[in-house]
Amino acid sequence: MAKRPRRAIAVIHGPNLDLLGTREPEIYGRLTLREINAAMRALCGELGRPVRFEQHNGEGELIDAVHAAASRGDAIVINPAAYGHYSIALRDALAAAPVPKIEVHLSNPAAREPFRRRSVIAASVDGTIAGFGVHSYLLAIRAAVALLERRGM
Amino acid sequence: MAKRPRRAIAVIHGPNLDLLGTREPEIYGRLTLREINAAMRALCGELGRPVRFEQHNGEGELIDAVHAAASRGDAIVINPAAYGHYSIALRDALAAAPVPKIEVHLSNPAAREPFRRRSVIAASVDGTIAGFGVHSYLLAIRAAVALLERRGM
Amino acid sequence: MAKRPRRAIAVIHGPNLDLLGTREPEIYGRLTLREINAAMRALCGELGRPVRFEQHNGEGELIDAVHAAASRGDAIVINPAAYGHYSIALRDALAAAPVPKIEVHLSNPAAREPFRRRSVIAASVDGTIAGFGVHSYLLAIRAAVALLERRGM
Amino acid sequence: MAKRPRRAIAVIHGPNLDLLGTREPEIYGRLTLREINAAMRALCGELGRPVRFEQHNGEGELIDAVHAAASRGDAIVINPAAYGHYSIALRDALAAAPVPKIEVHLSNPAAREPFRRRSVIAASVDGTIAGFGVHSYLLAIRAAVALLERRGM
Amino acid sequence: MAKRPRRAIAVIHGPNLDLLGTREPEIYGRLTLREINAAMRALCGELGRPVRFEQHNGEGELIDAVHAAASRGDAIVINPAAYGHYSIALRDALAAAPVPKIEVHLSNPAAREPFRRRSVIAASVDGTIAGFGVHSYLLAIRAAVALLERRGM
Amino acid sequence: MAKRPRRAIAVIHGPNLDLLGTREPEIYGRLTLREINAAMRALCGELGRPVRFEQHNGEGELIDAVHAAASRGDAIVINPAAYGHYSIALRDALAAAPVPKIEVHLSNPAAREPFRRRSVIAASVDGTIAGFGVHSYLLAIRAAVALLERRGM
Amino acid sequence: MAKRPRRAIAVIHGPNLDLLGTREPEIYGRLTLREINAAMRALCGELGRPVRFEQHNGEGELIDAVHAAASRGDAIVINPAAYGHYSIALRDALAAAPVPKIEVHLSNPAAREPFRRRSVIAASVDGTIAGFGVHSYLLAIRAAVALLERRGM
Amino acid sequence: MAKRPRRAIAVIHGPNLDLLGTREPEIYGRLTLREINAAMRALCGELGRPVRFEQHNGEGELIDAVHAAASRGDAIVINPAAYGHYSIALRDALAAAPVPKIEVHLSNPAAREPFRRRSVIAASVDGTIAGFGVHSYLLAIRAAVALLERRGM
Amino acid sequence: MAKRPRRAIAVIHGPNLDLLGTREPEIYGRLTLREINAAMRALCGELGRPVRFEQHNGEGELIDAVHAAASRGDAIVINPAAYGHYSIALRDALAAAPVPKIEVHLSNPAAREPFRRRSVIAASVDGTIAGFGVHSYLLAIRAAVALLERRGM
Amino acid sequence: MAKRPRRAIAVIHGPNLDLLGTREPEIYGRLTLREINAAMRALCGELGRPVRFEQHNGEGELIDAVHAAASRGDAIVINPAAYGHYSIALRDALAAAPVPKIEVHLSNPAAREPFRRRSVIAASVDGTIAGFGVHSYLLAIRAAVALLERRGM
Amino acid sequence: MAKRPRRAIAVIHGPNLDLLGTREPEIYGRLTLREINAAMRALCGELGRPVRFEQHNGEGELIDAVHAAASRGDAIVINPAAYGHYSIALRDALAAAPVPKIEVHLSNPAAREPFRRRSVIAASVDGTIAGFGVHSYLLAIRAAVALLERRGM
Amino acid sequence: MAKRPRRAIAVIHGPNLDLLGTREPEIYGRLTLREINAAMRALCGELGRPVRFEQHNGEGELIDAVHAAASRGDAIVINPAAYGHYSIALRDALAAAPVPKIEVHLSNPAAREPFRRRSVIAASVDGTIAGFGVHSYLLAIRAAVALLERRGM
Repeated sequence: MAKRPRRAIAVIHGPNLDLLGTREPEIYGRLTLREINAAMRALCGELGRPVRFEQHNGEGELIDAVHAAASRGDAIVINPAAYGHYSIALRDALAAAPVPKIEVHLSNPAAREPFRRRSVIAASVDGTIAGFGVHSYLLAIRAAVALLERRGM
Repeated sequence: MAKRPRRAIAVIHGPNLDLLGTREPEIYGRLTLREINAAMRALCGELGRPVRFEQHNGEGELIDAVHAAASRGDAIVINPAAYGHYSIALRDALAAAPVPKIEVHLSNPAAREPFRRRSVIAASVDGTIAGFGVHSYLLAIRAAVALLERRGM
Repeated sequence: MAKRPRRAIAVIHGPNLDLLGTREPEIYGRLTLREINAAMRALCGELGRPVRFEQHNGEGELIDAVHAAASRGDAIVINPAAYGHYSIALRDALAAAPVPKIEVHLSNPAAREPFRRRSVIAASVDGTIAGFGVHSYLLAIRAAVALLERRGM
Repeated sequence: MAKRPRRAIAVIHGPNLDLLGTREPEIYGRLTLREINAAMRALCGELGRPVRFEQHNGEGELIDAVHAAASRGDAIVINPAAYGHYSIALRDALAAAPVPKIEVHLSNPAAREPFRRRSVIAASVDGTIAGFGVHSYLLAIRAAVALLERRGM
Repeated sequence: MAKRPRRAIAVIHGPNLDLLGTREPEIYGRLTLREINAAMRALCGELGRPVRFEQHNGEGELIDAVHAAASRGDAIVINPAAYGHYSIALRDALAAAPVPKIEVHLSNPAAREPFRRRSVIAASVDGTIAGFGVHSYLLAIRAAVALLERRGM
Repeated sequence: MAKRPRRAIAVIHGPNLDLLGTREPEIYGRLTLREINAAMRALCGELGRPVRFEQHNGEGELIDAVHAAASRGDAIVINPAAYGHYSIALRDALAAAPVPKIEVHLSNPAAREPFRRRSVIAASVDGTIAGFGVHSYLLAIRAAVALLERRGM
Repeated sequence: MAKRPRRAIAVIHGPNLDLLGTREPEIYGRLTLREINAAMRALCGELGRPVRFEQHNGEGELIDAVHAAASRGDAIVINPAAYGHYSIALRDALAAAPVPKIEVHLSNPAAREPFRRRSVIAASVDGTIAGFGVHSYLLAIRAAVALLERRGM
Repeated sequence: MAKRPRRAIAVIHGPNLDLLGTREPEIYGRLTLREINAAMRALCGELGRPVRFEQHNGEGELIDAVHAAASRGDAIVINPAAYGHYSIALRDALAAAPVPKIEVHLSNPAAREPFRRRSVIAASVDGTIAGFGVHSYLLAIRAAVALLERRGM
Repeated sequence: MAKRPRRAIAVIHGPNLDLLGTREPEIYGRLTLREINAAMRALCGELGRPVRFEQHNGEGELIDAVHAAASRGDAIVINPAAYGHYSIALRDALAAAPVPKIEVHLSNPAAREPFRRRSVIAASVDGTIAGFGVHSYLLAIRAAVALLERRGM
Repeated sequence: MAKRPRRAIAVIHGPNLDLLGTREPEIYGRLTLREINAAMRALCGELGRPVRFEQHNGEGELIDAVHAAASRGDAIVINPAAYGHYSIALRDALAAAPVPKIEVHLSNPAAREPFRRRSVIAASVDGTIAGFGVHSYLLAIRAAVALLERRGM
Repeated sequence: MAKRPRRAIAVIHGPNLDLLGTREPEIYGRLTLREINAAMRALCGELGRPVRFEQHNGEGELIDAVHAAASRGDAIVINPAAYGHYSIALRDALAAAPVPKIEVHLSNPAAREPFRRRSVIAASVDGTIAGFGVHSYLLAIRAAVALLERRGM
Repeated sequence: MAKRPRRAIAVIHGPNLDLLGTREPEIYGRLTLREINAAMRALCGELGRPVRFEQHNGEGELIDAVHAAASRGDAIVINPAAYGHYSIALRDALAAAPVPKIEVHLSNPAAREPFRRRSVIAASVDGTIAGFGVHSYLLAIRAAVALLERRGM
C-alpha cells in the first residue's frame, strides 16, 4: 500500500497582522510577519513538516482558509487577532474542522484592555498559546506536530 | 397595461453552510446545501415562484446579496448562521430592505450554547422559523409566498 | 394487525388569546381566535389530521393540557403567549412530553419590548415559528405534520 | 335617549390578600380584607359609584377578572401582590383593557426586599399608589373616579 | 395648656417643574405649576390645613427645603422629578425627616424611559403616588392629611 | 384539660410531579408519586404523625394548599418544583405560614441548568433538602418531626 | 471470601466552626462542635457505621481531608462554611471523590446575606441539607447511610 | 529641498451607506452618498486639501482602506456605521494608524436603539462628530484639517 | 413687517471648567476658558451671530441657564463636563428646550475612564462633538449656526 | 528669605451633616457638627496647624469649596456624605486639586445599604478613613498633617 | 480587687506583605515590614499599649490568628491584603470576634485595579484606613486605642 | 570572574494535581504527576536547565513557593489549577516576582464550565499555555527557557 504523505501545517494570520513590526511594537514586537513566518518555516523544516502561510483582514476569507485547511487535513495554527473576541462565524468554522487546531497570540490578552479577555473561539480549538511573541508561534508549531503525532497523522 | 412579472424569492445562506451534510450532522442533519436547495426549488416550482440561491462566508458579501435582492424586489429567505448573533451591519441591511424577509435556522438555537440565544437581526425581519431542519427552509418558502401575496406582489 | 389511527394535533392557546381580534389589533391582527382555529381546521382537513383546540389563561390548566396531549400522543402546537417568558413549570411540562412540539407566536417578539426577548420554553420544543400572524399557526400545523411523518406517526 | 348608567369600579385583590389582618401585620396592618372592602364601599357610596370586590390566589383567575371588568367597562383597582413582580400574563391582560386602571399596594415595595422593586405591570396601568395601608385603596378609589370623570364615563 | 396649631403641608417641586404646561404637554399635561398649586391650595382649604409651595432646580436648595419643612414639623409632599433617580443626598435628607412624606409624579415613570424606573428615594418616603397628572398632587394632599391624622398631628 | 392532638404533616407536591416515574427518569428516578407517598406514609406511621398528600399544577392551588395547611397548624413539606424558581406568590404564602416548613427536591438543582439555581422561596422556609431522590422526602419528614418537637407541637 | 468492612463516614467541618456555641448563637445555635459531634457519633452507633470528625480553617487542609476520605472510601459529610461560596479548589476535590458526598449547613443560607446564596460546591456533591441546626448534621448522617446502602457499600 | 505635498483626506464610508437617500430617510436624511461626497469635495477645494472617497460593506475591505490611508499619511474621516458597535478588527486598524482620525455619524446614536450606544472604536480615534446629517461630514473635514495643521502636515 | 433679529448662541460651560489651562493640561489642553471663549467670540463675529458665555459648578444653575437660553430662543452649545454622566435633571432641561442643542467635549471621553463612557444627556441634544480640544467648541459654533439656518432662525 | 506660613487644613462637610446629633444618632452618633469641629480645632491647635470649616448641601458649593482650598494650598479633609456615591463633578474637582486630600466617613459605609458601597471619589483622594465616628475626623487631621509634612508644606 | 491588665493590640499582616520594601515600591513604599512594625511598636509604647505582630500567607493561618486575638481580647489591626477581596472565611472570623477591629491598607485600593474595589470584609470591621502608607498603620493604632478606650478596656 | 550558574526552572503544581491519572482522566489524561514531572525532567536535561517540582493544595504554600522561586531567580512554570479562578493573593505573589512566569493548564478551560473562563492570574504572568495535556508542560518548559535566554539568564 502506498504511503500517505505527512500532514502539513496551515498557519493562518488574522486582521492587521500584516502591520507587524510597525504597529505598536512595544506590544507586538519588532519582527515583521515575513520574519516570523521564516522562523516557523525553519522549525518546520527541522521537524519535517510542510507548512503554508496566509494572512487575511476579512472574516469571510479567514473562514475560507479554515475550510480549505480542514479539507486538506492540515493542522491549523491560527492567530485570530481581533476576530477572536467576537467572530462566532470563525468559531463555527473551527469547530467544524476535524484537525488539530491551535490558537496563538503574540501578546498576553489578559494583560491588556478588558475587551480582549473575551474569546469566542477558545472553546473550539484544542489549545491556546499566548504571550511569548514569536515564540508563541514556534511553540504552536511544536504543539501542532505533537497533536498530529498523537493522532498518527 | 403590461403585466408585471411575479416577484422571486432570494434564498441567502450565511457562513459555514457550505459544509452542510458533513459538519456536526447530529445538529445540522445529513442533507447537503445542494439537496436543501433542490427541495426548495421543487416547492417553488409547485407554488409558481422563481427562486435564486446564494451562499457566502463573508459579511460584506451577505450585505451585498441583501441589497441586490431588495433592489430587485425579491422576498428574502435568509439563514444568517453565526452572523445572526452579532452582525449589526447585516441587521441594518435587512432593516433597509422593503421586501418580505424571513429568518431561518436548521436547528433550534435556544437549545444550544447560551451565546446562540442572542439574535441581533430577529427584530429586522418579518418573522423567524427555527428548529425543523430542511423543513425550516420549506416553511420559510411558504411564509415568503404568503407575505408576497398579502402585499399583492 | 389493526391499523393504528393517525395522531392528532393539539393546538393550545395561552393567556389573553381569547381577546384576539379586539386586543391591540395593530400587533395581533384582526382575526378572532375562532377564525384562526377555523383556518387551522381547514388545513388539517386538507392534510388528513384530526385537530383539537384549547385556550387557557391559567398556568396550571395549560400544564394539564400539555400532559393530556402528551398522554394521547398528539403533536402539540402551542402559543404560550406571556407564559413563554417566565413559566418554567410550563417548560418542564413540555420537556417531559415525548411528542412533536412547536411554539407559535403571531407577532415577532424580537421586535417588541425587551422583556419579550426572553423565552424560557424555546429550548424545550422542537422548533419555533413567529411573526407571520395567522400564517404562523398554519405553518406550525405543517411543521407538526412533518415531524409526525418523520417519526412515522 | 336613555341615560347610560355610571361605570362601576372593580376592585381585584391578588394572592395572599385573603390573609390580611393576620399575615405580618407589622407590614400589612391589622385590618382584614373584609374591613378594607367595607371602607371602600362606604367611600364609593359617598362618591356615587357602584363597586365590586374579588380576591384570587391564581394568576388565571386574576386574568379572567381583568377581562370581565374590561368587558363591562369598569374601572379597575388592582392589588397584584406578588404577581406584580413577574406576571407578564397579567400585565398583558391589563394592557389590553381599555378602562381606567390603578395599581395599589398597602406597603411601600421600595422599602422592602430588593425583588419587590421590580414591577412588570406598572407600565400597563394608568398610575400607582403605594405605602398608605388602607388609605392606598381609598385614594385609588378617588383616582378611579377622577379618571372615569375625565373620560366622561 | 395652649392648643398646638395644626401641622401644615410643605409641597416641594423639583427641577424643571417650573416649565409645566409648556414642557412636553403630552406627558406632563397643560396645567402650569401655578394652576396645580392653586388646585392644591383649594383642597387644603377644604381640608383645613395650611400649605406652602416651593420649586427648586438645585439639589442643595431641595435639601434645604426638606430640612426646613422637617424642622417645622410639616408633612412633605415632594415631586423630586429627575433627582428621584439619583440624588442620594435628597434621599438622606428625606430619611432624616421625622414627618409624613409623600412622593408624587405627574406621569407614570414605569411607562417611560428605562432610566426612569430607578428611584433612589422611594424607600425613604412613606408612600408614592404616580401617573394621575394634577390628581397625583391632590391625592398626595389627602394622603398627607391621613398620615398627619394617624399620628394625631 | 383535654389533650391537644398531635400536629399532622402536609406534603404538597408542585407542578409536573404527577409525571414522576415516567418523566426523565435519569434525573427524577423511577418511583411514581404514589410509591413515594407510600414510603412517606410508612415512615410517618412509624414516627406517629398523621400525614396528608396533595399535588397541583396550578400556582393558585398550591397557595391555597399552603394556606389550608397553615390554618390547620400542619407542618409543611413542599416540593415547589419549577415554581420554586419564580413564584413569589408561593413564597409569600409560605412566609405567612407560622408552621414548620421544609423545601424538598428530588434532584440536585445546583447540578442542572443555570436557571434552576435561583430559588425565590428558599428564604421563606426553615430549611431545604435536595438531591437524594425519594430519601429527600423521607429526610424531610424527619426534619418536620424534629421541628414540630422543638416547638412542642 | 472475607467480608469487606462497612464504609465509614468522614465528617469534615470548615472554617470558624471551632467557634460554634459562642459565635452568633442566634444564627448558629448554642451547641458546641463537640456536642454536635457527640450527637452524630450516637446516631452512627445506632446505625452501625464508624464515623470520624475533623475541623480545619485552612482550604488546603480541607482539600487534604477530602482526598484522604475519598482514598479510604468513606462517605463525606461536609460543612464547607464560608469556603462553599468561593473555593473552587475544594469543589474540584469533591468532584474528584467517587464516594457519597453530602453538604450540610446549620443555618439557611438563602435567608441570610446575598453573598451566601452563591455556592460553588453544591453542584459537586450528591445533595444538600440546610437550615435545621444540629438536625442538619443528623439528617446528613442518615443521607450518607442511605447513599452507601444504595451503592451496596 | 523639494516641498512635500499637502496631506490628503481619506473619507471612508462603512456598510449600507451606499443606500443613503433611500434608506430610512427620516433617520439618515434624503441626500445620497454621491451628494454628500460632492459637498465634502467642494469644502476640501475651498480649504485646499485633496480628498478621496470609498465605501465598503465588508469589514476586511474597510480595514484595507484604513491601512492604505495610513500608509499614504492621509487624515481619515470614517463613518463606521454598524461596524462601530462591534468591529474590534476595525478598531485595531485605526489604533495602528498614526494619522488624524475622525469618526462621523449622520444621526445621533445615543437617541436610537440601545445597541447603538456601544462604540468599540471611539477610543481609537481622535474625536467624534455625530447627529448633524451632512454637516457631520463637513465638520469632520474641518476637524481633519485642523488636526493636520496642528501637526504641521 | 419688522425684521426679527438673528438668534444668538448660548455657550454654557459645566463644572470645573473654570480651571481650564491649569487642570490636567495633558488631557484638557493649556488654553484657559477665557481664551477659548475669545476664539468662539471671534468665530461668531465672523459668522454674524451674537454669543453669550456662562460657567457654573452647580447643577441647578446649569439648569437655570438652559431654561433661560431656551426661553430667549438661543441655540445652546453646552459642555456638561461631569454632569453629562449622571445629571438626568440637566437632561430633562435640555429635552424640554426647543432650540438647537450641541454637546461639546474637549477630550475624547471614550478614551478615558470607563465611567466617562456613559452619557445621560447625549440622547437629548441634536448632536455631539468630542475630542478636538478648542476646535470642539469652534466646530460646535459652526454646527449651531448650521442648525439655526436649517430652521430659518 | 521670608518664611512661608504653614499650610492650613480645610474641613469640608457635605450634605445633611448640618443635622448631626439629631439625625439617626444610632448611625451617626450624638455629637453635633459644632462639637466635632471643636474637637478638630483643638487637635489642630495642638499640632500647630490653622483649620477652616465649611458645610454645604449643594454640589456646586462643595466644588467651589474644593477649588478655593486648592487655590490656597490647603490640605482638604472632606466628608462627601451622599455625594461620594455619585458626584463625578466633585470627583473631578478633587482630582484637579494638587494638595493632600482625605475622605472621611463617620460610619462604615460597607456595613450599611448596598448603594453606599459605591464611591466615585475614593480614587481621587490620597486616602480614606471610615467608621470611627468623631475619631474618623481626628485621624484625618493627623493624616493631613502627615501628608503635608511629607511634602514639606 | 486586682486590676485587669490593659488590652493589647494584635497587628495581623496578610499575604505577600513579607515582601514589603521590595515589591512594587512605587505602590507600597520602600519601608520593610520590620520597619513598619518598629514604627508601630514605638507609637504603642508612647500610648502605653502592648502590641504583637504576625504575618501569614495562608488564609487558614490568618483565621487562626484572628481567633487567637479575639480569645485574648486584643484589639485587631489587620491588613488583609488580597484576601480582603474574596475571603469570606476571614470575614466570618472577624465578624465573630467581639473586639475592636480595624482594616488597614497601605495604598488606596480605589485608585488601583477594578478588582481591588470589592471588599468582602469591610462590613465586618469597625472601620477602615487606606492610602497613607506607613501612616495607615499608625493611624490604625490610634483608632484601636480610641475604640478600646471607648469600651473602657 | 566566576561564571554565574544558569537559572533553574521551578515547576509549581496547584491543588488536586496530586490526583492526576486518577481524577476525571477523560479531562486530565491518564499520566500521573510523577510521570509528567519525569517528562519535564528529561526535557530540561536535554536543554541543560536544572528543574525543581512542588505540589501544594494550600494557597499559602503556593504563595510561599512563588516567593522562594522568585528569590532564587528561577523561572516559574505554574499550574494554578482552581486557584487561577479566584486567588488574588497568588496573583499578587506572581506579580511581585521579577522572573519569567508561565501559566499552564492540561485541559482547555474555555471548553469547560463557565466559571473556568475567569482567570485572575493570567494578567500577572508572561504567557499562558493550555489544552495540550502533558505537552502543555513541555511547551512551557521551552517557553521558560526562551524567556530566560531572552533576558540573558
